[in-house]
Amino acid sequence: MLNPSEIDFLKSCIRNVPDFPTPGILFKDVTPLLANPKARTMVSDGMVSHYKGQNIQAVASIEARGFLFGMMLAQELKVPFIPIRKSGKLPYKKITADYDLEYGKSSIEIHSDAFIQDAKVLIHDDLLATGGTANAAAKLVQQAGAKLVGFSFVINLKFLSGEVNLNREYGVEVHSLLNFFE
Amino acid sequence: MLNPSEIDFLKSCIRNVPDFPTPGILFKDVTPLLANPKARTMVSDGMVSHYKGQNIQAVASIEARGFLFGMMLAQELKVPFIPIRKSGKLPYKKITADYDLEYGKSSIEIHSDAFIQDAKVLIHDDLLATGGTANAAAKLVQQAGAKLVGFSFVINLKFLSGEVNLNREYGVEVHSLLNFFE
Repeated sequence: MLNPSEIDFLKSCIRNVPDFPTPGILFKDVTPLLANPKARTMVSDGMVSHYKGQNIQAVASIEARGFLFGMMLAQELKVPFIPIRKSGKLPYKKITADYDLEYGKSSIEIHSDAFIQDAKVLIHDDLLATGGTANAAAKLVQQAGAKLVGFSFVINLKFLSGEVNLNREYGVEVHSLLNFFE
Repeated sequence: MLNPSEIDFLKSCIRNVPDFPTPGILFKDVTPLLANPKARTMVSDGMVSHYKGQNIQAVASIEARGFLFGMMLAQELKVPFIPIRKSGKLPYKKITADYDLEYGKSSIEIHSDAFIQDAKVLIHDDLLATGGTANAAAKLVQQAGAKLVGFSFVINLKFLSGEVNLNREYGVEVHSLLNFFE
C-alpha cells in the first residue's frame, strides 16, 4: 500500500491539461509519471503489494495506455498478460463488445482462446472515468470463459462514479492507487 | 544475448495467422508470447543485456504494442519512457509526423517537451516490417531535440528490408531479438 506522501508525489507527476479532448474537460496527463522511473516503480509496487497472494491468474489490459502498467503488473505477478484491443487489431478468433461513447459507439475485442477456463482474471486500465470501457472489457473476459475477480486502475476520477457502476454490476473489488475527487 | 535454444523457444511463442489483416499476409501474432511469463522475461533480459551500459537516456515507444516491452525496457534501464501515439491522443503541446501506409496515410505524435535536449534516445517497437512507422518515429525524436542512438525490435521481418532502410537513413544500430527470413 502507498503511504500519503507517496500518493502526493505520484499525484504531482500527473499533469492537468485543460480543454482536452474537448472544451471544459480537465485531462489527467500521465506522461510525466511515465517519464519518471521512481514514480513508475512506486505505481508498480503499489499495485503488486495489493494483489500479491490473491491468486490472480491473468491480467487483461485495455489498449493502449492500459498496456503500460498492465504488462508490468502481469510480469511482477508472473501470470499471462492478455491484450484487449480496439476493433480490427487482434488477428485470431475473437469476441467483440460494443459500448457507448459520449458521441457514438466504439468496440473492443479479445481473443476467444485468451484464458484457461475459469481463470481468475484482473482487468487493468490506467484511468477509470465512467467505467464504460472497463464494463465492456469485463463482458469480454466473462464471455471468454474466465472468472472476473477485480478491476485495477492507476487513476480513479471518483466524481464520475465508475467505481460505483462497476461494483454494482460485477460485485468485485475496484482498486485504484490515486483517487481524484474533482 | 539470447542463445539459439532461447531464440527457438521465443519463435515457438509466435503464432502465424494467415491472411491477416489482408489476404496473402502471414501475420506474426505475439499474444502467445505475452501470455507466457517465462517468454516475456526472456525478451526483457535479451533486450536489457544488449543495452545495459550503453548510456541510453530514454526509451520512446510506439502505440500500442510497442508500449508492452518498451515500458519493461525503460523500467529495467531506469530511464524515462516516452509514448509516441496516434494522432489526437496526446493532450499537451506536440509534434506530428505523417507517413505512408500501403493504402493511404497515417500520422503519429510526440509531446514537444518529451526529452531533455540531446538526450540519447532508443526507439522501441515490437515488430519491424518496412520501417515506415519507425522512420516517422525517428523524425519525431529528432524534431523534439533528442539524439537518436538506435532502434530496438522484438521481431524483424528481414525480407521486408526495414533494417536496411532505417540503417541507411539514420546510421544507427537496428537491433532485433528475433529475425524472420520469410
